[in-house]
Amino acid sequence: MKKLLIMKKIYKAHILFTKEQSRFEVLENGYVAVGADGCVTGVAADLASLDSTDAEIIDFGDRLLIPAMNDLHVHAPQYRNQGIAMDLELLPWLQNYTFPEEMKYADMAYAERMYRRFVRDLWRFGTMRACVFATIHTDSTRLLMRLFQEAGMGALVGKVGMNRNCPEGLSERVDDMVAGYESLISEFNGEPMSLVRPIITPRFIPSCSSEMLQTCGQLADKYQLPVQSHLSENKDEIAWVQELEPESTSYGDAYDRYGLFGQTPTIMAHCVWTDGDELALMKRRGVVVAHCPTSNFNVASGMAPIRRFLDEGLQVGLGSDISGGHDLNIFRMMVYAIQVSKMHYQQNHERAFLSLSEAFWIATKSAGRFFGRVGSFEPGYEFDALVIDDGDLNHDHYSLLHRLERYIYLGDDRQILHRFCRGKEIHKPEIL
Amino acid sequence: MKKLLIMKKIYKAHILFTKEQSRFEVLENGYVAVGADGCVTGVAADLASLDSTDAEIIDFGDRLLIPAMNDLHVHAPQYRNQGIAMDLELLPWLQNYTFPEEMKYADMAYAERMYRRFVRDLWRFGTMRACVFATIHTDSTRLLMRLFQEAGMGALVGKVGMNRNCPEGLSERVDDMVAGYESLISEFNGEPMSLVRPIITPRFIPSCSSEMLQTCGQLADKYQLPVQSHLSENKDEIAWVQELEPESTSYGDAYDRYGLFGQTPTIMAHCVWTDGDELALMKRRGVVVAHCPTSNFNVASGMAPIRRFLDEGLQVGLGSDISGGHDLNIFRMMVYAIQVSKMHYQQNHERAFLSLSEAFWIATKSAGRFFGRVGSFEPGYEFDALVIDDGDLNHDHYSLLHRLERYIYLGDDRQILHRFCRGKEIHKPEIL
Repeated sequence: MKKLLIMKKIYKAHILFTKEQSRFEVLENGYVAVGADGCVTGVAADLASLDSTDAEIIDFGDRLLIPAMNDLHVHAPQYRNQGIAMDLELLPWLQNYTFPEEMKYADMAYAERMYRRFVRDLWRFGTMRACVFATIHTDSTRLLMRLFQEAGMGALVGKVGMNRNCPEGLSERVDDMVAGYESLISEFNGEPMSLVRPIITPRFIPSCSSEMLQTCGQLADKYQLPVQSHLSENKDEIAWVQELEPESTSYGDAYDRYGLFGQTPTIMAHCVWTDGDELALMKRRGVVVAHCPTSNFNVASGMAPIRRFLDEGLQVGLGSDISGGHDLNIFRMMVYAIQVSKMHYQQNHERAFLSLSEAFWIATKSAGRFFGRVGSFEPGYEFDALVIDDGDLNHDHYSLLHRLERYIYLGDDRQILHRFCRGKEIHKPEIL
Repeated sequence: MKKLLIMKKIYKAHILFTKEQSRFEVLENGYVAVGADGCVTGVAADLASLDSTDAEIIDFGDRLLIPAMNDLHVHAPQYRNQGIAMDLELLPWLQNYTFPEEMKYADMAYAERMYRRFVRDLWRFGTMRACVFATIHTDSTRLLMRLFQEAGMGALVGKVGMNRNCPEGLSERVDDMVAGYESLISEFNGEPMSLVRPIITPRFIPSCSSEMLQTCGQLADKYQLPVQSHLSENKDEIAWVQELEPESTSYGDAYDRYGLFGQTPTIMAHCVWTDGDELALMKRRGVVVAHCPTSNFNVASGMAPIRRFLDEGLQVGLGSDISGGHDLNIFRMMVYAIQVSKMHYQQNHERAFLSLSEAFWIATKSAGRFFGRVGSFEPGYEFDALVIDDGDLNHDHYSLLHRLERYIYLGDDRQILHRFCRGKEIHKPEIL
């Protein structure tokens, strides 16, 4: 009789991951066992150490097996603007490119064409989980969430709250926002283990009235939903927030007063100028930093003090920030994070810059925590993984660690052979 | 009777290049005519404006036709170290990786295997001209030069002068260095139009005794050869040079005293801390800056003031600086140059950062001048060109300028369909 369902799989390959930030775990020709629920049941240097009863064993040979990537900050509707108009500064760029583009997402046909490409390209670069800003439009946001579901990839997707300092077409009434959120919540927030869920997303303080911010905080509390927004990206923005929220003691405190700063799990993108009280509050509230290094450079914001955030014990992840950032590839984001940190170190005489294992840990286990037990191969972790065939980069017998470093610095989507999200192999999503 | 040789070719495509640094020339469905000598005879929006008698017309359709890339600073024997050991600082990295690797180039079999890959990968990324550091070894340097000749690509290749502060195996006696240079000069410096020529290459002041530096200056003068070296990359290095050459008024002045600072055409890599007298001297002598932005970041040297150099009228080009830099792709070097410039602008309240056209101009026409009339499509320029098929990046009717910007920011070797050097199509060089 044919066995129809093999419940357990054991993958053999060169396994690399970061249990701790300071070093890689390296298992040459190692094994990782994955249960029927998609979670790791064991990882070992030899098969005998694992329970292999009824397990299908898949041998990836000389390939590298590593955790998949997580993108903690990306604007899906700015996908078309990726890599253009980089000569402009923030304000004309928002007005001439960002806002007009986001308005197009009232058009479902346009949204589908673009969002399919966006999801396909996250897949290409091995990003299996993402925290995504959509637009104010409930219908196309729903579509984007369904596309993630269809692909089998994990995402927290935010319908964006905006009702001031923005064009008419991107402003929504607070009660319409609530109705939109509740419609998405009823469809996607059914079970806590769902791969695709809503996240409360006020664009940033200057885009939202007090009433809207208050309501966002209430929605997060009522439905126990996570929150994402932007924080302290540039100095003019910080001064503007201070004007808009004169009673707040910091930009972060302004969010905090509305229940949007760690009351539920919260990600803040950028934090370039976060320091003092704001840093202390983030620490106290467990607010997560989405570090967007290419965006730091491209938008000329300045360089976020990531070494300091790690030393203070803040949780940090990486964000591509399309289209302030120009690159969806989180491996390249690791390179940029190290470079930002090196310049910060060089200019401020810091004790150290970000190491490779720290950058990898930030992109995998540290960021992954926002999605559950994601980003490591320790038992109990969801099996989000990439199989890397670096044959073309491994032309002279490099060590496994150097092979991984070369892949991070030189590789691209061509070397990613397989992608897994929560134990399931993810195939190339279709585009139109 | 069959016509055996078509002397003149006319290429049709969307043509983009930078005659001036401040703007692109854009010819939608334009034409560029190339004579039998490989030089451009005309460029126009319509065929009627060109003399098309006896010309073969090649239509590249909806593709972009742009000047090929020039790499003004790259260490060929550090090719194996590309993308590894980036966690190390300069000194342990030189001692544990750079020097041991360069010693291997006494072995011709190893050198051939690696140098073939290096030339192939320059080709991959559309770099048709390069200023290259080899090693002290005359035989493998000759081999590298022959590989460039075989490929049909342009290169100035430097046998490296070193005789102090380096391992025994990388130190050469001054008379052996002279004999080695003269052997290369006799083979490669026959005609001024040769695509591959020697360049006098003292590694940097700390690596060369006064006698060696003096001799390098004399060789440059005697054979009228160009010079390349490193300048003012980091502050410790500058202090060290001051100690070694106490009479010099700057690092640049130390080279100048030996006839190695613009007496013949000279490229200096890095110039991160160049200012004051050194900057004035470079200007006076017409010394060219090889700006290596990824290397600035990776080696944590600091960020070169490229905006300032342009404003002062210095000639600047881009260098990949493998393996201080991790990327051979000069398009990506443009992105990094803009980013370095944006951080310099942000931190020093400068009037502007580098624009896209400036970065492109630096990589093409400005750098190309070191090789002759290279880097533009103006009449008289050697036809060094790339045909870019950006179909996969052009998914929503971008303008031609946005298509080029997206290719620069998002593209890679996959979109380069044809490569030309001095009028000849260059095919993929073989590796072993």
